[in-house]
Amino acid sequence: MIDVGLAADVLTATLVDVPSPSGGETRLADDVEATLRAAPHLSVDRDGDAVMARTTMGGERRVVIAGHLDTVPVADNLPSRRDGDRLYGCGTSDMKAGIAVMLRLAVALDVPRHDVTWLFYDNEETDAAHNGLGRVLRNSPDWLRADLAVLMEPTANRLEAGCQGTLRVLVVATGKRAHSARSWLGNNAIHAAGEVLSRLSAYEPRRVEIDGCEYREGLNAVRIEGGVSGNVVPDRCTIAVNHRFAPAALPRLREPAAAEFLSAIGGEPRAKLGWTDVARFASIGIPAVNFGPGDPNLAHTREEYVEVPLISECERMLRGYLVG
Amino acid sequence: MIDVGLAADVLTATLVDVPSPSGGETRLADDVEATLRAAPHLSVDRDGDAVMARTTMGGERRVVIAGHLDTVPVADNLPSRRDGDRLYGCGTSDMKAGIAVMLRLAVALDVPRHDVTWLFYDNEETDAAHNGLGRVLRNSPDWLRADLAVLMEPTANRLEAGCQGTLRVLVVATGKRAHSARSWLGNNAIHAAGEVLSRLSAYEPRRVEIDGCEYREGLNAVRIEGGVSGNVVPDRCTIAVNHRFAPAALPRLREPAAAEFLSAIGGEPRAKLGWTDVARFASIGIPAVNFGPGDPNLAHTREEYVEVPLISECERMLRGYLVG
Repeated sequence: MIDVGLAADVLTATLVDVPSPSGGETRLADDVEATLRAAPHLSVDRDGDAVMARTTMGGERRVVIAGHLDTVPVADNLPSRRDGDRLYGCGTSDMKAGIAVMLRLAVALDVPRHDVTWLFYDNEETDAAHNGLGRVLRNSPDWLRADLAVLMEPTANRLEAGCQGTLRVLVVATGKRAHSARSWLGNNAIHAAGEVLSRLSAYEPRRVEIDGCEYREGLNAVRIEGGVSGNVVPDRCTIAVNHRFAPAALPRLREPAAAEFLSAIGGEPRAKLGWTDVARFASIGIPAVNFGPGDPNLAHTREEYVEVPLISECERMLRGYLVG
Repeated sequence: MIDVGLAADVLTATLVDVPSPSGGETRLADDVEATLRAAPHLSVDRDGDAVMARTTMGGERRVVIAGHLDTVPVADNLPSRRDGDRLYGCGTSDMKAGIAVMLRLAVALDVPRHDVTWLFYDNEETDAAHNGLGRVLRNSPDWLRADLAVLMEPTANRLEAGCQGTLRVLVVATGKRAHSARSWLGNNAIHAAGEVLSRLSAYEPRRVEIDGCEYREGLNAVRIEGGVSGNVVPDRCTIAVNHRFAPAALPRLREPAAAEFLSAIGGEPRAKLGWTDVARFASIGIPAVNFGPGDPNLAHTREEYVEVPLISECERMLRGYLVG
């Protein structure tokens, strides 16, 4: 049971201090479930370590507000540590500050402007095959039915629309082995890979503007490996290429539910350049945006922290939208 | 004690069946030492697993005939196996066939045309720092004093003169890490390595002719490694480049002792394109050639074999030279 009466920053620290790396979310999910079940206006359900709590006012519009409970592996950065306006620790930005805001509002807002489905899920920071939102989509698609989805990924309280796609291809250059003292008998696969790298270097990233959001693509070798031994002309060199393409989820900011959210939040929307689970909502036709108090540049770093003032600001902004 | 009365091919099989991968030569070295000590015309000495036996006739000229006792690691290719004119097994070509010839002639030729220093040494097929010939050069340089050195490396009974050099350099391309979704904030070190590979591809190997022997140089990437993780623009890529340069040891075929050997052996000399220990003899001013019954292309392969007729042919050629 979590005390949602704590100030948002203190609550964030409490959540951070329950370690929940991907696959280890059960204790935190249990706490979240117990907390939500104590709120009479919420109907709560659970799937694995995903917890869903929703209002059922029969309103005209429904919004899903979703956040993942898991973090990347702890890197000697727990327990949390407060230093002035910063709260340091694994998961502070990505995304327990957002979870704290969700928990406080889920319990506090018994009659929100729209019906709300609060979704806390597991295994976002790991192999996509284990993603808790993907599992919910398969097991209980009705949990996700909504006119808008807000994913509380770290955006420093700006609306980040849509998301880009990512795909990885393996390029294999082949050749013929030979002793390097008689290299003309072989064909060097690493040398052959040079042509691939030249093309990657020459690549001009496409920029795409949609609904006022500029997406920037990318094409990068993220790994290269080749070689047999110090005196052998190698016959194989592999290059892993990561392509970031725009967009994997359209911003759809002109949809009424999204436009209403944008107008409540204010500010200039921008493109989400990374891949996020908004793509899963997009895949079932739900406009989805990223919005949360964490700092996107600090996610996954050992020095991860959250700017404490952004947590209550996020709560104020989201409350404003939900109260109307 | 080794029975040098056995036919050269049978003796080769006997030697092959005493495994002697680098660092494990002691048993074979003991056998070789005992065999040589039984020959009254030889004065024998030992350093680690190197065995030296020499005639001391006070002749005008001295030739060192040297071979290494060790092999590359056994690769399921022992004991030896005879198939028609081929004897299969680890070390057959590189170079126990040559060791068999050396042992038979060392014991048989009590009054050779020139004084002979027979040198059997260890640790040639491993890190150069452990090379037995290098150790002998430090501990007992007088063992190597001679007008000519013949190294019984596999050459299929052709004279291969001198040797090429080999050196390895590590080229490191650097860049700046960034999330691959925001790759323009970084600088891809793997892409930067493309320029290195382009230059290696464009490299035109130099050919050098000395004393009628053509050396061919080479410049090859033998290993490439780079990459941090699947979504990071990498900041480091390393390329190991192997340069084969000509020559590390000059052929020096016009020196009288070498010219005499060439004339006795006959045939067209050619350049040794790999690196061999002839370079160690060259470093102390001794003309040195490669000459042995093994097949240079089969050395270090699992399918290593020696053409049996070449063993007795080699013995006949070397005997002809030593008897005059």
